[in-house]
Amino acid sequence: MLEDKNPSRTSLEELGEFGLIKHLTKDFALKQTSSVKGVGDDAAVMEFGPLKTVVSTDMLVEGVHFDLSYMPLKHLGYKSVIVNLSDIYAMNAQATQVTVSLAVSNRFPLEALEEFYAGVALACKVYEVDLVGGDTTSSTKGMLISVTAIGTADTEQLVYRSGAKENDLLVVSGDLGGAYLGLQVLEREKEVFKVNPNSQPDLEPYAYIVERQLKPEARKDIIDLLEKLEVHPTAMIDISDGLSSEILHLCEQSDVGCNLYEDKIPLDPTVISAAEEFKMDSTLVALSGGEDYELLFTIEQKEFPKIKGNPNLTVLGHMTHKNEGAHLISRNGSKIPLTAQGWNSFGN
Amino acid sequence: MLEDKNPSRTSLEELGEFGLIKHLTKDFALKQTSSVKGVGDDAAVMEFGPLKTVVSTDMLVEGVHFDLSYMPLKHLGYKSVIVNLSDIYAMNAQATQVTVSLAVSNRFPLEALEEFYAGVALACKVYEVDLVGGDTTSSTKGMLISVTAIGTADTEQLVYRSGAKENDLLVVSGDLGGAYLGLQVLEREKEVFKVNPNSQPDLEPYAYIVERQLKPEARKDIIDLLEKLEVHPTAMIDISDGLSSEILHLCEQSDVGCNLYEDKIPLDPTVISAAEEFKMDSTLVALSGGEDYELLFTIEQKEFPKIKGNPNLTVLGHMTHKNEGAHLISRNGSKIPLTAQGWNSFGN
Repeated sequence: MLEDKNPSRTSLEELGEFGLIKHLTKDFALKQTSSVKGVGDDAAVMEFGPLKTVVSTDMLVEGVHFDLSYMPLKHLGYKSVIVNLSDIYAMNAQATQVTVSLAVSNRFPLEALEEFYAGVALACKVYEVDLVGGDTTSSTKGMLISVTAIGTADTEQLVYRSGAKENDLLVVSGDLGGAYLGLQVLEREKEVFKVNPNSQPDLEPYAYIVERQLKPEARKDIIDLLEKLEVHPTAMIDISDGLSSEILHLCEQSDVGCNLYEDKIPLDPTVISAAEEFKMDSTLVALSGGEDYELLFTIEQKEFPKIKGNPNLTVLGHMTHKNEGAHLISRNGSKIPLTAQGWNSFGN
Repeated sequence: MLEDKNPSRTSLEELGEFGLIKHLTKDFALKQTSSVKGVGDDAAVMEFGPLKTVVSTDMLVEGVHFDLSYMPLKHLGYKSVIVNLSDIYAMNAQATQVTVSLAVSNRFPLEALEEFYAGVALACKVYEVDLVGGDTTSSTKGMLISVTAIGTADTEQLVYRSGAKENDLLVVSGDLGGAYLGLQVLEREKEVFKVNPNSQPDLEPYAYIVERQLKPEARKDIIDLLEKLEVHPTAMIDISDGLSSEILHLCEQSDVGCNLYEDKIPLDPTVISAAEEFKMDSTLVALSGGEDYELLFTIEQKEFPKIKGNPNLTVLGHMTHKNEGAHLISRNGSKIPLTAQGWNSFGN
């Protein structure tokens, strides 16, 4: 095999997925005058006319990103679109089109793919985006999904990861940690089912967090809300890999530090009780869990009155000078450096 | 497993990849005023400003679309981009950006992916497109690639598959069948290598066809040539799945028939000799081989003087009334119905 011929080897674990794409694309220069922004933000930006065009792409692999033993295919189709739309909204843009490509082994009958596409159709309907392309092909093993989402925004509307300034407030939509704990519940039920296939799981107490995992939503409503409130974020990112990892992205790309206050992190009661049940620290779950698809953004302090008291938004902390680094200020006041505990897909 | 719960099963073989995507996307309506063209042509078209935006996406799976035992990773990176650019040119548009997503198992070291991206970079340089996004993730088995290409065109410049009219001439660029026979040579050498790992294959006599397989080019030059010649095709498609399959696409979407003349099919001398060596009919190879990435298009008869004698273009036949169907007129004058022998990735 090719990879054994080369005596110089760097393992992918060392880099993780963020380091890898950065490393692999660092020498690509943008040449087209229409290319406004390439790799390094939630989506690429192109200028073809009065509006900017925004494009985002993501690949989902069976056994890595989803487990079909508890993920209904319709939900998977829905979620595959949602995770890409979330990247478009994280640019403060409006999603307009998606393409969906699928590779599946022969073990899938047509009806299974129809279920998948029913989920895609539902997401398109709910978020008012058009499916405009795609590709289906066979795989030697399992199911693979690649989605590209396209959107538009006025130039002055666009929000990058790089615009946060010292003293800006750090704000998050919704609540955190639910999707990760929903996954823990589903994994546990899968193990129970393996031992006793006749067991009937009662997922009712976990309905909220299971839905956060199986049928997440993208926060288009937050983009619309910010417009209505006339709040223009200075930087924004969606939370796909955990709060900690996303904060570090904002800090790195904006060249600032951050103080995040533990007692401000919004947690649903179901998240708190499930974390206790699984003997996990709920703060760590929120910091590292991922897949919540909430929006994390920074605003100037003077904008605070506009968002104050809004039940959809929580101020988590503020940005600092770069030299101060990024820290969690715990409930007892100690300062703990944030590390990227975000999901590293090469780490297993 | 999910697919076993459903008593009603339709096998993917029955549909093939064209039928499948058509079937799965048939109920998707375009809602956005900016969506000009969705699934069903080489690329989607969106209107964001004075120019149309064109998007195309393709997925490549190890063991299905490529074999790393003879496909160098740099070539694979190059080819992954080329196959998508070819779809953009087949719209008579200019490619401007690509996104490249990659899923790989841990058996690949960083250096292997660098090689892959070196090929992507070369294609971007040669075709003057920008890499603007992508995603890398892990796979449980093998390597998977998803590329999305974006381009632009003036509205009047765009060419769909659906514009061919009765009596239009059918024209192809370059020559056909090379990529398929190149693959046969590589497969044969792989078998020889399995038996005797010390054998040194002499691929020199097959250089042209092996290059057609391993490092194909997209015919941007033909788009530029047509513009220079002031020839506006009435319909166009790229040849990824074999001449026969592509002609049937043009006929179906343009609602016409076609007479294709066997003696007009352009074949390189290497293709003729390799076909003999492999005891294959060279016409069948050209009709069914695929992966040549030439452009197949139709023009009005009055345009003929503009392309006459051009070494890059060959008139293969003409479009007929729909009721006449699509036929190959063989060298001895017999009329053989064309069938989609194009590669069916679910057929194995």
